[in-house]
Amino acid sequence: MKYRNFHKGGFGIDCLKELFDKATQRTGSIVSVAAAADHHVLEAASAAKERGIADFVLFGDLGKINEIASQHQINICGMEISDEPDNLEACRKAVALVAEGKANALMKGLVDTSVIMKAALDREHGIRTDRKLSHISVFELTTYHKLLFVTDAAINIAPDLQGKKEIVENAVAALYNLGIARPKTALLAAKEKPDDKMPVTLEYVELVKMAASGELSGCVLDGPFALDNAVSKESAEIKGIDSPVAGDADLLVCPDIEAGNILYKSLAFLAGAKNGGVVVGAKRPIILTSRADSSESKLISIVLGVLF
Amino acid sequence: MKYRNFHKGGFGIDCLKELFDKATQRTGSIVSVAAAADHHVLEAASAAKERGIADFVLFGDLGKINEIASQHQINICGMEISDEPDNLEACRKAVALVAEGKANALMKGLVDTSVIMKAALDREHGIRTDRKLSHISVFELTTYHKLLFVTDAAINIAPDLQGKKEIVENAVAALYNLGIARPKTALLAAKEKPDDKMPVTLEYVELVKMAASGELSGCVLDGPFALDNAVSKESAEIKGIDSPVAGDADLLVCPDIEAGNILYKSLAFLAGAKNGGVVVGAKRPIILTSRADSSESKLISIVLGVLF
Repeated sequence: MKYRNFHKGGFGIDCLKELFDKATQRTGSIVSVAAAADHHVLEAASAAKERGIADFVLFGDLGKINEIASQHQINICGMEISDEPDNLEACRKAVALVAEGKANALMKGLVDTSVIMKAALDREHGIRTDRKLSHISVFELTTYHKLLFVTDAAINIAPDLQGKKEIVENAVAALYNLGIARPKTALLAAKEKPDDKMPVTLEYVELVKMAASGELSGCVLDGPFALDNAVSKESAEIKGIDSPVAGDADLLVCPDIEAGNILYKSLAFLAGAKNGGVVVGAKRPIILTSRADSSESKLISIVLGVLF
Repeated sequence: MKYRNFHKGGFGIDCLKELFDKATQRTGSIVSVAAAADHHVLEAASAAKERGIADFVLFGDLGKINEIASQHQINICGMEISDEPDNLEACRKAVALVAEGKANALMKGLVDTSVIMKAALDREHGIRTDRKLSHISVFELTTYHKLLFVTDAAINIAPDLQGKKEIVENAVAALYNLGIARPKTALLAAKEKPDDKMPVTLEYVELVKMAASGELSGCVLDGPFALDNAVSKESAEIKGIDSPVAGDADLLVCPDIEAGNILYKSLAFLAGAKNGGVVVGAKRPIILTSRADSSESKLISIVLGVLF
């Protein structure tokens, strides 16, 4: 309880504001939206444009886009709209704009994730790189003293050692773009000691070795950690854990998609966090908001897409 | 955001009070403490006794117990103390009291979990049954409308289908003792649809079939669920999920120990939940509090130990 009381003032608040400020200062950002005829997506785009976070190029059914905007009184003035009623074609064109370097991020509208991802990963016309794709989310909590990033809650199901290394590298590169150099990176497991019966803890020992040898660089990485030791100095002290990451993690690396997704959802829905997330590892970030996300969450995701 | 705002009044508050009341109404409960010479454990026992939750029989070094009690001004008046300086022997005797039916729960003091568990699971003198041991935790959140139970955050590493079935059965039996008949039980994964690439979702399909056939009874069980669909009716509606469990789960079943432990810690340390937990599946509950638990958390764990 001491930890919780200590944090009651909510001193994690307003960390996100800095990101919003950074995004508005970076002028000229453009987001390319595939299949934009969706109420929620247009609303998020409009809010982001009004705040000066980015301009938007919309690919989708022009008639429907105008109808939705008028029906829900969404201001889409000044947005470039490319009339493309076919979803697959809209995805291809939205991806092409990013591939040509004319947009800073790709955003999914009302289309299946698989369809836009197929277009994005097309070997000839897509924005694929030789890096692995991975998902990064950010949380602003009243119970933590800074922004907390989590990877991977949505893309990689059960990454092996090499996969985990690439996921960490993706996140480190992304956080660098936010001005977080050498993020304190906690490898999360069910306990803080390596255990033969818990294979992920042994992978973490290897990752820590890679960080020590410089094979995995750009972050201060440690683990395994139980989550409390990564976010609470008091918990770490009780357990006798002496690590610069303990109680002060910037980035939490999850063992697999189940743990990552459950952590994401618990912070967003039960811890009352403000949150957003994007996919990185392609040439540019991919913003995959879902209808279940709040407007605020969609806006935060756009900010990440612009900054990463 | 609508969900979060909707819950802002904190209408999950005071659910735990009902459990405390139940525990005090059930008079004559006795907790057998192994290796009791520990400041934190004595404090929790004293607080529980003062509230009329249980009486305690302490097995441990009498001199040290008295010294700690006097040094920290902990009231242990009226507690039976059996002088046993040897930790292993203290564990054996504490277990024996439970095995003889003279105590309702076993509680760990300042001794390694492995030592007390070995004594508890001794085939001749222990409190082993043919059931699997599993861990159940409870959370009172300001963001949820009732108590939320989670299993298994601490014992079973990667339970197979049969293991998961037994973990659910243990939890259902335990919740029945709290007056929660037919708990709404959500099987947690990374998404709400079965997916060949996510083996746990296929196990869940089997568990749901078992529940339908009556092979797994006593609960309203459904899944796979992403966590948000289990605890938010709005999220479930957006996803088109029609299930009595959606948005109203009593019990969350986690895929493995990593997901369970990370969920537990995120609720306790980042969502500001009040929480407690015990091990069930032996003849009587085993209370394994750790020094990192708050005093309140230890007290809640004792309440569960008495009630389950």
